[in-house]
Amino acid sequence: MEHTKGGFTMPGEAGYEKLTLELAERWGADVVRDSDGTKLSDEIIDAGYGVYSTICIIREHNEFGRAHPECLQQTFLSTEPQIAQGDALDVRLMAGFFDQQFRVNDGEASMGYWQVWDRTENVLVPRERWTYREGTVTVTGTVPFHVYTVSFLAYRLWEEINMYNHVTNSWTSEHLMPIDPRLPAAQEYLYGYLDNWCREHPATTVVRFTSMFYNFVWIWGSDERRRTLFTDWGSYDFTVSEKALADFEREYGYALTAEDFIHHGDLQVTHMPPTAHKRDYMAFTQRFVADFGRKLVDLVHSYGKKAYVFYDDSWVGVEPYGPHFPSFGFDGIIKCVFSGYEARLCAGVPADIHELRLHPYLFPVGLGGAPTFMEGGDPTRDARQYWMSVRRALLRAKIDRIGLGGYIHLLEGFPDFVDCIAGIADEFRAIRALHDGGAPAALPLCVAVVHSWGGLRPWTLSGHFHETYMHDLIHIIEALSGLPVDVRFLDFDQVKSGALEGVDVLINAGRAGTAWSGGDVWKDPQLVAAVTGWVMDGGVFLGVGEPSAAQGGWGYFKLRDVLGVDLDTGARVCHGRYTFDVETVPGLLPEGAGVRGLDHLYLTDGKTRVLAAGNGLPTIAAHPLGKGCGLYLSSFQVNHANTRMLLNLMLWASGKGLAQPWLTDTPEAECAVFPASRKLVIINNADEARTVSVATENGVRTVEMPPCGLVIQSI
Amino acid sequence: MEHTKGGFTMPGEAGYEKLTLELAERWGADVVRDSDGTKLSDEIIDAGYGVYSTICIIREHNEFGRAHPECLQQTFLSTEPQIAQGDALDVRLMAGFFDQQFRVNDGEASMGYWQVWDRTENVLVPRERWTYREGTVTVTGTVPFHVYTVSFLAYRLWEEINMYNHVTNSWTSEHLMPIDPRLPAAQEYLYGYLDNWCREHPATTVVRFTSMFYNFVWIWGSDERRRTLFTDWGSYDFTVSEKALADFEREYGYALTAEDFIHHGDLQVTHMPPTAHKRDYMAFTQRFVADFGRKLVDLVHSYGKKAYVFYDDSWVGVEPYGPHFPSFGFDGIIKCVFSGYEARLCAGVPADIHELRLHPYLFPVGLGGAPTFMEGGDPTRDARQYWMSVRRALLRAKIDRIGLGGYIHLLEGFPDFVDCIAGIADEFRAIRALHDGGAPAALPLCVAVVHSWGGLRPWTLSGHFHETYMHDLIHIIEALSGLPVDVRFLDFDQVKSGALEGVDVLINAGRAGTAWSGGDVWKDPQLVAAVTGWVMDGGVFLGVGEPSAAQGGWGYFKLRDVLGVDLDTGARVCHGRYTFDVETVPGLLPEGAGVRGLDHLYLTDGKTRVLAAGNGLPTIAAHPLGKGCGLYLSSFQVNHANTRMLLNLMLWASGKGLAQPWLTDTPEAECAVFPASRKLVIINNADEARTVSVATENGVRTVEMPPCGLVIQSI
Repeated sequence: MEHTKGGFTMPGEAGYEKLTLELAERWGADVVRDSDGTKLSDEIIDAGYGVYSTICIIREHNEFGRAHPECLQQTFLSTEPQIAQGDALDVRLMAGFFDQQFRVNDGEASMGYWQVWDRTENVLVPRERWTYREGTVTVTGTVPFHVYTVSFLAYRLWEEINMYNHVTNSWTSEHLMPIDPRLPAAQEYLYGYLDNWCREHPATTVVRFTSMFYNFVWIWGSDERRRTLFTDWGSYDFTVSEKALADFEREYGYALTAEDFIHHGDLQVTHMPPTAHKRDYMAFTQRFVADFGRKLVDLVHSYGKKAYVFYDDSWVGVEPYGPHFPSFGFDGIIKCVFSGYEARLCAGVPADIHELRLHPYLFPVGLGGAPTFMEGGDPTRDARQYWMSVRRALLRAKIDRIGLGGYIHLLEGFPDFVDCIAGIADEFRAIRALHDGGAPAALPLCVAVVHSWGGLRPWTLSGHFHETYMHDLIHIIEALSGLPVDVRFLDFDQVKSGALEGVDVLINAGRAGTAWSGGDVWKDPQLVAAVTGWVMDGGVFLGVGEPSAAQGGWGYFKLRDVLGVDLDTGARVCHGRYTFDVETVPGLLPEGAGVRGLDHLYLTDGKTRVLAAGNGLPTIAAHPLGKGCGLYLSSFQVNHANTRMLLNLMLWASGKGLAQPWLTDTPEAECAVFPASRKLVIINNADEARTVSVATENGVRTVEMPPCGLVIQSI
Repeated sequence: MEHTKGGFTMPGEAGYEKLTLELAERWGADVVRDSDGTKLSDEIIDAGYGVYSTICIIREHNEFGRAHPECLQQTFLSTEPQIAQGDALDVRLMAGFFDQQFRVNDGEASMGYWQVWDRTENVLVPRERWTYREGTVTVTGTVPFHVYTVSFLAYRLWEEINMYNHVTNSWTSEHLMPIDPRLPAAQEYLYGYLDNWCREHPATTVVRFTSMFYNFVWIWGSDERRRTLFTDWGSYDFTVSEKALADFEREYGYALTAEDFIHHGDLQVTHMPPTAHKRDYMAFTQRFVADFGRKLVDLVHSYGKKAYVFYDDSWVGVEPYGPHFPSFGFDGIIKCVFSGYEARLCAGVPADIHELRLHPYLFPVGLGGAPTFMEGGDPTRDARQYWMSVRRALLRAKIDRIGLGGYIHLLEGFPDFVDCIAGIADEFRAIRALHDGGAPAALPLCVAVVHSWGGLRPWTLSGHFHETYMHDLIHIIEALSGLPVDVRFLDFDQVKSGALEGVDVLINAGRAGTAWSGGDVWKDPQLVAAVTGWVMDGGVFLGVGEPSAAQGGWGYFKLRDVLGVDLDTGARVCHGRYTFDVETVPGLLPEGAGVRGLDHLYLTDGKTRVLAAGNGLPTIAAHPLGKGCGLYLSSFQVNHANTRMLLNLMLWASGKGLAQPWLTDTPEAECAVFPASRKLVIINNADEARTVSVATENGVRTVEMPPCGLVIQSI
């Protein structure tokens, strides 16, 4: 691979100027940046590179926070359940919570939002039946053996990313407080702070916001056996305050309650379909974040600097595919990535610059607590593994920049890693150059994924793959991220109102009742009929796991008559089952492909074709219907063989056929063709050498591919 | 074992008189019987034995059936779903059904009960929008891409036990029709028939009714790949008719509809909680069966004969634990058994004589279609295996008689089997003699099982073990059938109204939403508080699988705060989980004991003690609460080790302690002590010799037990 330059953001570190500049040269960097915990020195800043400066605008203001404790960010908390034994009950609010993170907000306005619940009866305890004193709520008139909880507002004393880094890396610095810009005093202060900051940092070319104001929720407990009580990358819990609630009521004409957040103690999990109130509150918060965010971006622009947003950590409310994102005026978006889908997520955002921050982060330990740049770590292996996932997505969609973050002094013992990154940077620039010549070709296959969040949150569920691996859909999306097909994301309303026009395959994948499968939305006969009619007219509905599942009425899968399979929830245990033979379609299932089975699955129609089975249950099935087809997979685990299987199944079921040009003969290798520049790029995703043949329009071309290799050829 | 006589019912067979009488002597028989397909000759009848004559009162009347086709039994059927493509749809009613079993009843009264459903919208199609002609319903005004079904009444042309035997054994005789005594003409005819029959059979000492009038439901399809469309041992589908529906409406003041039976195409599965309408209809049918049944029993008695009922096949409506059973006046009940729980079921019925018909049935093939008395069969192994399951239950409750059924000529090639049955008969009589001396002692442990059917259907779910093995509860009940504890069965109303008084352990076991777990009944706060309060006062709630589970509100297991565990249905995927260590309680879990895990299970309380785990999930857990305890098992598979584990867990959790007298030191052996007669009986349930020690009140007693052996000692 030719050594090139540009499109690379280099973490600098004061005290390691020589190393910084050497590595910048080695990796072809054009920008240096600081990180959480590092600073750039003048020597680095003056070396002729662009300069990114990281700002987490809502922290590092402890003096202001101490002077204005009402400006700290908050959240709703709910106590652990307590069983009443007599007619009164004392509930200590903070029992079980991490007292360095929270402090009860017992102000009058706050207490107006507190709730005491009889959870057994599912009724609110009237306000006159409870009192509060010194951290304890006393409930009277309790029903013996009913379970009670108290919901209350708490200030957050410790910004959670700082808390995490502190604990993980044994920092001893002062705990940073999170300031809530919802309060005018805070907003005014933060605006002035940024104004001053811009003035004092003339060398900064890009302000890298990390991110805006509100972190994803991360509630810690006091028990080491369960330190995390709740964390959800997509949740809005940490945006709440008395003022937010009052503003909301004024704007929407109805009041939210604690229960809109606490939700039977389950909280509002992103993986479940949102309530109408949650949707309203999200929209309300998004507008606020965009309004004040735009003012900050305008301020940055007024200093001749650019503003990029890091889409992680305090991203909540930013929603890069939401209606307000363009109004921020960001010049670029930066996404940290482990996976291909995260690269696609970044690439599709309406912004000028799309940058990936690669993993591993240059820290002693990684996100899961495993060693990285220390004894026992193997960062080169990690980097290559992540790159193998990300690279295939880069063939499909253009990314403008990549980079790293963290402490570069940690690299001194890892020369392999430095080489590995050099290779990655050159591969990245070679791929980017292909896109500069015109878009890659795609197969004539339009794939739509439908879930509750639809186009608001394409190419993700909530956070990283290792946080969401238990959901079939993230495996599907990761597979799709590098396939040569058109992919779009729809919500259920769009499906009902014509968005299936032009779609070849509609995917619905997930556990029953989740945001991914859809839950009770499938009780809508219009939705069911819209999909059914579209399939009969030639569409392919691909259901995975418990697609279209909802309790009650006809079938558990509401599209059982499209899929030709259903799941027995207990009511069908006495019904006969079709016996079946497994049918082999030549070339359809690559060697090693297959998915885990699901108990209680059965065929609803003798015409259903079983393509794979395990433990006597179908695992892959196809059901011809009209001009189209229902396709069912019990589950999906992403790997090379299953990724190709997914493509094959979609081509086969939609009648396009498996004999398509520009496909490799082995699932471990993939390729893309760029017609305008007449270039073919082949990648070997395997860690071993492979002989790869590619079906082109003019016959088969065979290439010897090194392990993890990338080859570009003219056609 | 001493060779004894009596208490044994011997199937005789005309043409094999010598064999019949030889075997009767060998097995110590005191009664001979005929079977479905065999007759007794005068030589057998006159040999000095009691004579049982089998009568299935509703069949063998084809001449009457042909003359009165309106007197054939019926059922509701629902067509396979069809998707409308335009604004009209033709539905052929019999498509998919076995045409030798059913014929559409298109009489005017019948058609008044037919229904056409738009299943997609879950609405009934108005009567004026469909017409019927020559087997086909034409629906107009259909909504494109909605799914439609038609529910209709069909006559049943072939009594299903006859149909099954015919097909299984390649019979060529005329198909027998089932006559419905609900119609006065049929009732009058059947009464006269029985009167005549009694007169013509002076040698018969016992009329063995098989059973009363209505078979459990068994709907066959036309497709060999799915011959059984629906079968449910506990269902009342085959009792329906226009007259039954009209009589019901007159009596109850409201009309049942086809949908009360068809129920979204799921039908009314015994394993699901019954609807209120179903309960009413069952009570209505039970009264009818008992009313006409009593008349037939009275008639039998008037001839100086006794009347026994065989509790299988056409048992529907008899319900031997129901309120009407004593009013039949049966002198005895006969139950065919594979398992211990079936022996307990029989033993507890209020009747003078309790008889078990052992398996295997003397037929070439067994119930599952596997060979028995033919090439490839091993009936001796089968008989011993069933006896090992049944025998342990006989130690706990007295059975008066055992016997066999079928063709004895098949035994000629199986001398081992003849020996095996001789041994079983002697063991049976030895055990019966122990009970004659007074009841066995039990541990001070009262165990109650709660489910939707409660005391109406104790000691069973629905049919045999091999039909219900997929339910944890039948495994639990089978384990309980031979344990030295008091066992009772409760419904949920009883639990709410004081029936837990005196109970030490309450068991709730099953999948969410089923009759066994209970379903939405757990949304009743009174029920939840009643169990919670009882536990806090010292009770043990033992939940298995998805106990007390119901969607919505607080927790999925409504007793999560008693159990200390819950199951994540998707809303808790972002919540932290308690880590745990597995705790070892000496002596609690026998070697080899353990249960299969359940995905998505988590601890709700740090105080929950994990006693076993698999794949990182708790499988057995205990949660101390007040003076009592919640006990949780992810599932239950009955075997020797787990049976003892169940006993141990109940003793331990209820604070009784594991050191109880009259327990063996190995789970494969069990014992019972009969205090009045000062006898100890020890059984070895294993197929290998065992040295077994028994803790008695005066120290340990050690016995060498042969494989499958039974030893009786004085104490």
